[in-house]
Amino acid sequence: MFNFEYRNPTKIIFGKGQIATIAKEISPGTKVMLTCGGGSIKANGVHEQTMRALAGCEVIEFGGIEPNPEYETLMRAVELGRKEKVGLLLAAGGGSVLDGTKFIAAAIPFKGDEWDIVRKGAAVESATPLATILTLPATGSESNPFAVISRRGTGEKLAFSSDHCYPKFAVLDPETTYSLPRKQVANGIVDAFMHTMEQYLTFPVHAELNDRFAESILQTLIEVGPKTLADPNDHDARATFVWSATMALNGLIGCGVPQDWATHMIGHELTALYGIDHARTLAAVAPHLYRVCRENKAEKLQQYAKRVWGEESAEAGIRRTEEFFESLGVPTRLARYEGVQADTPALVVSRFEARGERKFGERGIVDLKAVEEILRRSLAA
Amino acid sequence: MFNFEYRNPTKIIFGKGQIATIAKEISPGTKVMLTCGGGSIKANGVHEQTMRALAGCEVIEFGGIEPNPEYETLMRAVELGRKEKVGLLLAAGGGSVLDGTKFIAAAIPFKGDEWDIVRKGAAVESATPLATILTLPATGSESNPFAVISRRGTGEKLAFSSDHCYPKFAVLDPETTYSLPRKQVANGIVDAFMHTMEQYLTFPVHAELNDRFAESILQTLIEVGPKTLADPNDHDARATFVWSATMALNGLIGCGVPQDWATHMIGHELTALYGIDHARTLAAVAPHLYRVCRENKAEKLQQYAKRVWGEESAEAGIRRTEEFFESLGVPTRLARYEGVQADTPALVVSRFEARGERKFGERGIVDLKAVEEILRRSLAA
Repeated sequence: MFNFEYRNPTKIIFGKGQIATIAKEISPGTKVMLTCGGGSIKANGVHEQTMRALAGCEVIEFGGIEPNPEYETLMRAVELGRKEKVGLLLAAGGGSVLDGTKFIAAAIPFKGDEWDIVRKGAAVESATPLATILTLPATGSESNPFAVISRRGTGEKLAFSSDHCYPKFAVLDPETTYSLPRKQVANGIVDAFMHTMEQYLTFPVHAELNDRFAESILQTLIEVGPKTLADPNDHDARATFVWSATMALNGLIGCGVPQDWATHMIGHELTALYGIDHARTLAAVAPHLYRVCRENKAEKLQQYAKRVWGEESAEAGIRRTEEFFESLGVPTRLARYEGVQADTPALVVSRFEARGERKFGERGIVDLKAVEEILRRSLAA
Repeated sequence: MFNFEYRNPTKIIFGKGQIATIAKEISPGTKVMLTCGGGSIKANGVHEQTMRALAGCEVIEFGGIEPNPEYETLMRAVELGRKEKVGLLLAAGGGSVLDGTKFIAAAIPFKGDEWDIVRKGAAVESATPLATILTLPATGSESNPFAVISRRGTGEKLAFSSDHCYPKFAVLDPETTYSLPRKQVANGIVDAFMHTMEQYLTFPVHAELNDRFAESILQTLIEVGPKTLADPNDHDARATFVWSATMALNGLIGCGVPQDWATHMIGHELTALYGIDHARTLAAVAPHLYRVCRENKAEKLQQYAKRVWGEESAEAGIRRTEEFFESLGVPTRLARYEGVQADTPALVVSRFEARGERKFGERGIVDLKAVEEILRRSLAA
């Protein structure tokens, strides 16, 4: 096991009806800015429950944070937050609203050009306190310090992270997710699965416990994913899925182990080029990446196949992964996504080259030749 | 899954040589009180490493915290801490030193009779910041808010817990545990195993992920326990054992599930009566408790046998558990511990009766008749 440091101070408030309890987490007299997206929280009852819980607080609202949250939109919230001197940002929504609110929190007290926080990784020395109410289980953003922010003007989509951006608390009420469209739930299952794989499917370092924790999340997603897709109102299955997605990216399973993330890097380019949903890009990259990297990942591929799927060979494990994603309605071949061009492999490679990015994955095993081969296989299949 | 709240703010600093990094966690000018036990940290190098790391701080020392830490001893530390206006308590040692230091931290700013913190559960509204350097993997005290304190004068041994008593950071350097006596390592393995079982072997509530996390810890302890006992210098095995013991009682696996703890309640009485090591009392109680409660625990016993041991029957799973503890040199029969009286079952029952304690375990399934039967079986076998 590698040396590591780990700390996650977010308080998880999990279960039915828990939005009603949030007032006890907020100091009396705090001015709250409720941030949200396009209005789904009004349809699913979260807005009403939240406003009722905050009856004793002064609340202002900032809606309209879009998928792939935009710098320009977020800066309007920053200005409002400064003017109103808000004491707490309460983000209610999915990963985009939560990510966007982390940027708002970091930008409000920031001195200088706020875009430097993401573009230059400028030091975030403080942040307006923030908290989250999750309505779309997938990204883990509800209890981690990571955010991805976009800027249409410059075509940038960049990540940042700050210890000051851990939410103070995160409410996860599975009931509030019952009304999600089937496609978003399927995407969330794949997203959580792939977050786990990126921290697991590398090379062995005798991290037996974290390996088993990762396998636990994978096995659980395989077990409850199809159930929660078939019956969104099955509370037990939905609750277990929500909790699995949180645990997949709250930092714990990545402790002391090598990490990959090459699938994410390639996937981001496919989203940027064709607007394919993030999780779907991962499904269209990962199986091919595992085949291309099968020698470097041999031991963990074998362990994964055996422990997670009960299969004897790496190839059988990869095939079962593809079948699992496909069974959720998520295609694992780029050829199956509309609008994807035949020259995608060369296009993605040239984008990486232009940015000087030449190696990805644990030990840098995914070079640009491998990227091309991965995408070629995904297109051909 | 039940509703739950979970938060663990302790920063884990894990691995070789990590004591050297602690200065960055401490504000310059902080006056540190280093607390420790009987001197083992001078023998194993932890004292020297710590003093070197704290070269820029003013440090005072308080040694001599005994196993089953004593109120009178701890109150001397409280007085010293108040007089010296210490800003951080740094506990270096095993569970007793860590537990004792949590009491010192809570008592320093406490107004009133400090014993009320444990005897009456008096509200702890603040605590002197504390941090830990763990030298004996077993109790999980390094990153949880729990402590057990004894008072010889009144024969009491009582637990308390406060959110203010989470350590700010916990250093876990497996190398500092290499010199532990074999018996303490074996006890630590059993202790971590039983902490996990108390949060797992109850009844199913569709908490699939937490069930698998618990099974992960059990399987890992079964895999690395014998290895680390056979070769204390095997870094990978020791590191995995240390991490498993921490994860067994940092609150995570108990989220959303019923908990038992009857084995601990009965075990505490055996320690009080005969001075048997805590972990050993657990080994001498648990298998018999599982047999006595086999109907109430039927589904989880079956799941445990199958998933953890690959066995088909509950009884086979219990037998494998006994064999595992015995293989570590930890007897699972009270009859094998010196000085244990034939009237122990009645004696323990009368102690519970005197305190008005009549039901233990999830759903109160362990009544005093069951306690008597459990101990009778352990004595007879």
